[in-house]
Amino acid sequence: MNSIKIMVNGLPGNMAQLVIEKAMDDQRFEVTPFSLTGPEIEETSVQIKNKKIALIKPDQKDSFLSGHDTLMTSTIAVDYTHPSAVDLNCQWYCENNLHFVIGTTGGNRKRINENVQNSEICAVVAPNMGKQIVGFQAMIEYAAKTFPGLFDGYTIEIRESHQLGKADSSGTARSLVPLFQDLGLSVQEKDIFMERNPKIQHKQLGVPKSFLGGHAWHTYSLTSKDQNVSFQFTHNVNGRSIYALGTLDAVQFLHHKILEGNNAGQVYTMIDVLKGL
Amino acid sequence: MNSIKIMVNGLPGNMAQLVIEKAMDDQRFEVTPFSLTGPEIEETSVQIKNKKIALIKPDQKDSFLSGHDTLMTSTIAVDYTHPSAVDLNCQWYCENNLHFVIGTTGGNRKRINENVQNSEICAVVAPNMGKQIVGFQAMIEYAAKTFPGLFDGYTIEIRESHQLGKADSSGTARSLVPLFQDLGLSVQEKDIFMERNPKIQHKQLGVPKSFLGGHAWHTYSLTSKDQNVSFQFTHNVNGRSIYALGTLDAVQFLHHKILEGNNAGQVYTMIDVLKGL
Repeated sequence: MNSIKIMVNGLPGNMAQLVIEKAMDDQRFEVTPFSLTGPEIEETSVQIKNKKIALIKPDQKDSFLSGHDTLMTSTIAVDYTHPSAVDLNCQWYCENNLHFVIGTTGGNRKRINENVQNSEICAVVAPNMGKQIVGFQAMIEYAAKTFPGLFDGYTIEIRESHQLGKADSSGTARSLVPLFQDLGLSVQEKDIFMERNPKIQHKQLGVPKSFLGGHAWHTYSLTSKDQNVSFQFTHNVNGRSIYALGTLDAVQFLHHKILEGNNAGQVYTMIDVLKGL
Repeated sequence: MNSIKIMVNGLPGNMAQLVIEKAMDDQRFEVTPFSLTGPEIEETSVQIKNKKIALIKPDQKDSFLSGHDTLMTSTIAVDYTHPSAVDLNCQWYCENNLHFVIGTTGGNRKRINENVQNSEICAVVAPNMGKQIVGFQAMIEYAAKTFPGLFDGYTIEIRESHQLGKADSSGTARSLVPLFQDLGLSVQEKDIFMERNPKIQHKQLGVPKSFLGGHAWHTYSLTSKDQNVSFQFTHNVNGRSIYALGTLDAVQFLHHKILEGNNAGQVYTMIDVLKGL
């Protein structure tokens, strides 16, 4: 069994923890017992199932690496660290030849990409690791480019529901607005209807109680001028498992690319992952 | 105003009548006061709004044409005649240099295409004139080709509702089955759930009473293995206006192609119409 070694950074954060749990259930992967953490974290390790994972603070990174250089040459890093730490971590991966996957929206993307391009490694850098969501965005983008004005004369309503704490509107919904415009629909970012009331979310929309604190539900409703034709596209995500699973598929993709060789400086996107798996 | 002359064949049939109504409301078009009809039709004309349209029986076609040759050179035929008449009509269009649009499923498509290819005219030949439906099919096809296995591990449920008289399952739903298979979903044509009960259609689905006799509602529901992610795609069509409007857009497309010239023998599809308008 040729399992892929991954070092999941960002413990004790929720996403890092979830990626590790999914990886431990997946025989494609072997989780290394180390994780980069923040300077403010007091724990020195985190227990996940039967595995104890040591936390490495920023000032311990280099000494850690020199003690594990053989281990790390064949390891892929997964970065779910704090947005304030992302840039320095990615720079560190590049300097120390650690291929990596990063799937958050934090950090300076331009700088991260440049660091990879000037390095000996390759990486997957994506704002969203939800494979099927990214695929849906790509479908709409394809339609907008190939059939501009397809929905001329139609109206559109965009509704999304997220946990109470989320102040701005859905980034996924906003990314689709210009595409819907190209399809002939009159819509602006400000027209996105945001539901943040947990009572309405549960009783009217049907969001399960256990996911009121973490969900991303979206519905796009298109209606013809004479009201006789309606299209509706819905994608409802509860919790974060879709992103953890997508992250692991991105790791597998990167592993294949590394085995193929000749990938120094390559930055891959989630679309590459979708096409390549 | 440079309006496009169209001869809509198939009166007194519903689709021909609807296309004429929509065309009379649309300043892009001028409807010629003639329509090919079947040998069994007893009326000699049909009144639509303020326009009287003479019906031409099969054995009158040639003599009609010789009396209107100037008129017909710049006219585009739209064929919604009976499936048993479609082949002979299309052959007649080809022999008499009448560009045409045909948007039914009737006739021998291979022969129709060959007749056009060996003629001086060009035509739009499509099994479905609903532009947005065709666009949706193309979106799913794009995803299936570009991201095979995107929904690996998901389950799918396909439900459709049509008028009581429709015996077979939805052709649109069936056309998507192999594409959903390519996307990683386990589904067969026989799994398509058909609703044909008008009471359930109205009370449970919400099909308006006036459209129980003619509607095409479709819902594709995709659910992740852990039940935490769901995608749903719905397209609900009441009545036939979407097909009539798509037919007129196909006529406009063909008109543009004719003006561009150098199109002898070209058979266009609805995808061409979507891309070209």
